[in-house]
Amino acid sequence: MNKKITDFLRDDIELLNEYEVPDSKGMIKLDAMENPYDHEVSLETNVTPSIDYETTAFEDFFGVYVNINRYPDANCEDLRKALLKKYGLGKKYDSIIGNGSDELVQLICLAFLKPDNIILCPQPSFSMYKKISQVLGLKYEEVPLLEDFSLDINQMIKKIKELNPALIFLAYPNNPTGNLWSKDDIYLIMKEANGVVVIDEAYSAFSGDSFVKQMDNFDNLLVMKTISKVGLAGLRLGYLFGEKSIIKQIDKLRLPFNINSISQEMSRLYTENEEFIDSQTKEIIKNRDYLLGMMKDIENIKVYDSKTNFILFRFLKGSADEVFSNLLADKILIKNMSKTPGLENCLRVTVGTKEENNLFIQSLKNSII
Amino acid sequence: MNKKITDFLRDDIELLNEYEVPDSKGMIKLDAMENPYDHEVSLETNVTPSIDYETTAFEDFFGVYVNINRYPDANCEDLRKALLKKYGLGKKYDSIIGNGSDELVQLICLAFLKPDNIILCPQPSFSMYKKISQVLGLKYEEVPLLEDFSLDINQMIKKIKELNPALIFLAYPNNPTGNLWSKDDIYLIMKEANGVVVIDEAYSAFSGDSFVKQMDNFDNLLVMKTISKVGLAGLRLGYLFGEKSIIKQIDKLRLPFNINSISQEMSRLYTENEEFIDSQTKEIIKNRDYLLGMMKDIENIKVYDSKTNFILFRFLKGSADEVFSNLLADKILIKNMSKTPGLENCLRVTVGTKEENNLFIQSLKNSII
Repeated sequence: MNKKITDFLRDDIELLNEYEVPDSKGMIKLDAMENPYDHEVSLETNVTPSIDYETTAFEDFFGVYVNINRYPDANCEDLRKALLKKYGLGKKYDSIIGNGSDELVQLICLAFLKPDNIILCPQPSFSMYKKISQVLGLKYEEVPLLEDFSLDINQMIKKIKELNPALIFLAYPNNPTGNLWSKDDIYLIMKEANGVVVIDEAYSAFSGDSFVKQMDNFDNLLVMKTISKVGLAGLRLGYLFGEKSIIKQIDKLRLPFNINSISQEMSRLYTENEEFIDSQTKEIIKNRDYLLGMMKDIENIKVYDSKTNFILFRFLKGSADEVFSNLLADKILIKNMSKTPGLENCLRVTVGTKEENNLFIQSLKNSII
Repeated sequence: MNKKITDFLRDDIELLNEYEVPDSKGMIKLDAMENPYDHEVSLETNVTPSIDYETTAFEDFFGVYVNINRYPDANCEDLRKALLKKYGLGKKYDSIIGNGSDELVQLICLAFLKPDNIILCPQPSFSMYKKISQVLGLKYEEVPLLEDFSLDINQMIKKIKELNPALIFLAYPNNPTGNLWSKDDIYLIMKEANGVVVIDEAYSAFSGDSFVKQMDNFDNLLVMKTISKVGLAGLRLGYLFGEKSIIKQIDKLRLPFNINSISQEMSRLYTENEEFIDSQTKEIIKNRDYLLGMMKDIENIKVYDSKTNFILFRFLKGSADEVFSNLLADKILIKNMSKTPGLENCLRVTVGTKEENNLFIQSLKNSII
């Protein structure tokens, strides 16, 4: 880790010890107050490519067996290995598994918890950056996006020079706007920042773009990902990649056993069997682009391009609140973003199945008329 | 919540908003960037009374079906209801579910994160109280237990008056000593303390004793429990009970969706079907008492009585380190407590199956000779 980053870490981080778990392989394990009765859970789940649950989900099961009377692997060794391998990350790098990306944001903030540290983020972006900063009492500064939701790179650089932020969170693609920012702008930010830049790639499966390979070029870059958006939200699992020495310090703040056994095993299974997720992702991208086209044909709304699995749109005439209510009356629940600064009169719809998308379009059109 | 406790909460807690999740029952759900393809996981697990996995585990399955493409219930409604019902807690009370008790300790500490706040604990006790206080930068004070591991009640009361702690954590039974403290002492502490007293009942299934009913008498009492020790450690799930208004404030610090769908469903299932766990717990208590008897017959070790599923013992002659190594050589892993202040030359063994206990006794005897 470079000296600039070390200076931002909390003063007592070197004094904290990592939680050590002894190797219990092949042992009669009597060290951890566990129930001793082996208790296997058969978790049968479909890993064959499928976008139509009704017809294929129960045809090809893949069993995962987990002893739930035992604590999970405190450090998710198998899963971390599988993820590093999938992304072609060598010995220079390591990862942390979080109980969702939220926990990873919290861990990063905890590692940089110092009275004068500042977190800098574009606005609007993922709301948890701000929420978690507040929870931990960290100073949080925002730079509004431009009208087309691109980065205001001049303001960003100005604020970086002025505030010297310890942490910068950049969602790529951005949520809730759905767009990808300029890579050159982000390179510039990483170059100018003395602190850590966290690229949050929660939706990258739908953009096909990633900063993972850029970790070779920027030693202050961390990349965060999640399995939530690609079909496994119920498991609650995010992962953070970074240069080993930074990851090591952040990992000291993690509570051990933070990922339950079943989520670990299931996530590893899907990391090693990608087809199921990949085929669904392809279908969602196709449906998103179809939905985008349909929405752009509707008058009096501005539809923003999307590299994610959701679409943001703004009412140029009429009220977003009203249309939101009309959709609700048709039993279609989307997200009302109108109260977010910069997103006045905006709604956000998640890409659904073809049938759901069509019902949404129909209801939207009826709501506007 | 009484005024004394409110004064200890962080200044901005009233300004933070709880994360709101709209009711999506019966809706076409397009609000949360979820994968839309229903993806049911068949989680088959044994809920019939069983202490012998080999013969019965696969005979009687109980299926839990969870759509893992959807986010889990952000607030664990069903599980919380089931737990409040199981413990007979009425409308005055509420609960928070944690990703293990560790997360609950963290949430409690976060809610009381203020520069001058002090956390007071007996020592030795559960190590995470101190670790989490450090991580969050809270002041932590200890009062050593007496030689027989009972509370030094005079010192505790003296420190309470002197330091006015915001939080007191009391493990009942205590880990790693295994004993129950005097209930009268604990009543006195709750009476004297202006701050919150958290009773950690992680091992209460093995003591048959609880403070849950005392919440009617002490408005500064929180009770924390876990399913980890009774056979479900792999699911990572702890729960906290308390008076509604306190729970509400602490819950503001919780990240939403902190419990994955499968752990929620499985925990609810076992809460509503208690026989499986209860029968194993009874057997463990029987085995613990048998093991205690066997160990007490061994010369030159002092064996401490236990109301838990583990036994602490001290070497009056010879070295705990050496015996620990000898046990390891026999592939028996227990816990070496020798480096914990107050537990010099002590080891801690978890109660295993009958066969495991016998192998342990045999190896222990051989190690001492």
